[in-house]
Amino acid sequence: MEETLPDDFEAMWADLAPVGRSATSGGYFRQPFLSAERELVAWFVEQCAARGLRVEADGFGNTVAWWDPTVVEEVAQQPSRNPRSSRTDAVLTGSHLDSVLDGGAYDGPLGVVSALAAVDELRARGVVPTRPLGIGVFAEEEGSRFGLACLGSRLATGALSWDDARSLRDASGVALGDVLPGGTSDLLSSVGTFVELHVEQGRDLVDRDAAVGLASGIWPHGRYRFDFTGAANHAGTTRMADRADPMLTYAMTVLAANKQARLADQRATFGRVAVEPNGTNAVPSKVTGWLDARCSSEDALAALVEAVERQASDRASRDGTAVAVTAESVSGAVGFDPALAASLAEPRGWPVIPTQAGHDAGILQAAGIPTAMLFVRNPTGVSHSPAESAELADCLTGVTALADVLQGLL
Amino acid sequence: MEETLPDDFEAMWADLAPVGRSATSGGYFRQPFLSAERELVAWFVEQCAARGLRVEADGFGNTVAWWDPTVVEEVAQQPSRNPRSSRTDAVLTGSHLDSVLDGGAYDGPLGVVSALAAVDELRARGVVPTRPLGIGVFAEEEGSRFGLACLGSRLATGALSWDDARSLRDASGVALGDVLPGGTSDLLSSVGTFVELHVEQGRDLVDRDAAVGLASGIWPHGRYRFDFTGAANHAGTTRMADRADPMLTYAMTVLAANKQARLADQRATFGRVAVEPNGTNAVPSKVTGWLDARCSSEDALAALVEAVERQASDRASRDGTAVAVTAESVSGAVGFDPALAASLAEPRGWPVIPTQAGHDAGILQAAGIPTAMLFVRNPTGVSHSPAESAELADCLTGVTALADVLQGLL
Repeated sequence: MEETLPDDFEAMWADLAPVGRSATSGGYFRQPFLSAERELVAWFVEQCAARGLRVEADGFGNTVAWWDPTVVEEVAQQPSRNPRSSRTDAVLTGSHLDSVLDGGAYDGPLGVVSALAAVDELRARGVVPTRPLGIGVFAEEEGSRFGLACLGSRLATGALSWDDARSLRDASGVALGDVLPGGTSDLLSSVGTFVELHVEQGRDLVDRDAAVGLASGIWPHGRYRFDFTGAANHAGTTRMADRADPMLTYAMTVLAANKQARLADQRATFGRVAVEPNGTNAVPSKVTGWLDARCSSEDALAALVEAVERQASDRASRDGTAVAVTAESVSGAVGFDPALAASLAEPRGWPVIPTQAGHDAGILQAAGIPTAMLFVRNPTGVSHSPAESAELADCLTGVTALADVLQGLL
Repeated sequence: MEETLPDDFEAMWADLAPVGRSATSGGYFRQPFLSAERELVAWFVEQCAARGLRVEADGFGNTVAWWDPTVVEEVAQQPSRNPRSSRTDAVLTGSHLDSVLDGGAYDGPLGVVSALAAVDELRARGVVPTRPLGIGVFAEEEGSRFGLACLGSRLATGALSWDDARSLRDASGVALGDVLPGGTSDLLSSVGTFVELHVEQGRDLVDRDAAVGLASGIWPHGRYRFDFTGAANHAGTTRMADRADPMLTYAMTVLAANKQARLADQRATFGRVAVEPNGTNAVPSKVTGWLDARCSSEDALAALVEAVERQASDRASRDGTAVAVTAESVSGAVGFDPALAASLAEPRGWPVIPTQAGHDAGILQAAGIPTAMLFVRNPTGVSHSPAESAELADCLTGVTALADVLQGLL
């Protein structure tokens, strides 16, 4: 990689391709604060340095690189209060660099690489911003390590307190407080508008024959831990009638959640499970399953989770087991700023579509920062999978669209 | 621990109590060739040294300690062929020291400790054996690490070849061939009779109000790996109808196996599962479940597994997933030597009962060595669980019973 000349979109994409990639599945393992994801953040800092951007980081693992306009420096020289905290007209773009376990290449990195390429395009157009433009990289967007999605943006906006977050633990028992210094963050204190570009995680744009679109909002969604407890026993000698097998209760709950979501046209998934002792010849003592649920309204989400929980409890009483449900995170409905969306979409004829996926953009919008999300077409709609993809032509259209949007905001 | 004076039963039991015990569950983690289990084997060798027994080991992790009678030594001094391979009248007792994950204290160690205590009792009675008496400790009886139960006795009897075994891998990817030297074993070449004492893993002896009993045979049983494959995707944005979710196929198969076993009065358990990528917000790409199945006849076992497999395939075709079934180990019905059982049980009024649990005794019997199994009463019937137990009085009755049986065979 050149140290002084910025890479273009294709070169940047090639830089990222091998980092954290599994040779067997072709998917990515870029869990936060581990080697592959840290390598990506270091790469991002190098790219920013090559562009003369000023890099700031907070104690939550978030990074923002600023393109400061001349006018800001003049303001800063006035005998005012702290110029950054006195201004809230900065524009932020960017996304995240972490991945789900065995995830795709585009979810997150496409927004970061496109932001860098958009800065290059704005400079090539001779744009001189009248306000600061930042490129942000938020930490642990996927929640793949500490279980809470959008961890970095929740902490940076104050939606989550450090006191609540520091005791979160990864699967090896490492606490977030042992990985990060914590503290407080003023990375976002000057931000007046956020624009996140992201690969679409469905096929709406394919159906609409559009390379890019704008998000109207995010469905309410949550993660619920179901702890099923029974009694460990010998898998051979224990009569079926004498068992208290939590695997049975778990299995029925998986099927019930699926049926409930199908009937209500919502989403419910059990994609993660942990079993104790997890031995072939032992009836388990405990099965823990995580329900990911997403609905078109907050009422529908509450009704879905309540219905699944009720069916789990009914079955538990028949199995001689017990079930306890803990909401690990619940995110309310997010509507992105309607005026901003209309001003961006209408002149360009971009479709405005909802999404069921959580994003840092949703956290910033919920924190009161007017936010827009740009989607880039995904030919198969597949995401959170090695098969996730986007066409290069659509990615370059996305860069131009992001540059257009930012130019209008600067 | 005394170096020169053998411990008695209670002292030996106290020696073992803390080794590999989980402070949280109270259960035992004594996987083979790892520290806790190796500590137990070292303890066994020390106990044998304190009793003047001659310890032999093979390249498969098995150990036998011999109490050689004077007459054998005289035979050995004759200009004959190898005296050990020319004799097949030795008596072997013993069991295993490894445990299932989070298992109980008795399954395995009770047979080893009782064998040492029985030697002490025979010596106290002034018994002078006319043939060698060995105390055996077989490796990886539970299959908790390398997935194949009775691994040590299968290798020692030649039921499993080293070429087939050496590539077995544990959950961390460590190959058996990197843990053990392998080779061939002649530990059992002189053995004419095997007697294994074991805690009962059901409540037959409780129902019969008997402290000890004898096994008639072992149900045929097997472990079958079900690999369910689907397509990873985003848990939020992927419409329910567009999914190929192997967790659904797995869940239905768990319930189908349970129902099939209930209807047929057999046993079927899914106690172990592995999910890829096992992330809360991703539809899994793969779910692997292990079926433990045990039936009263080999035909019933084949029918049970075939029915579960058929239902799994039917559901897979509806889920858009695929299922592949691999029999990882199948053990045919074992009938313990009927003449031996009758000669031991009838004079003493011991009940003769079947078991659904596999044992090294079954492997030795299947290899043509006349074998008997003694069971000690288990008040709750619970096994493969921290709650497994036996009363001290019953354990001491078991020691006396084992000493009686061995005295009759020596």
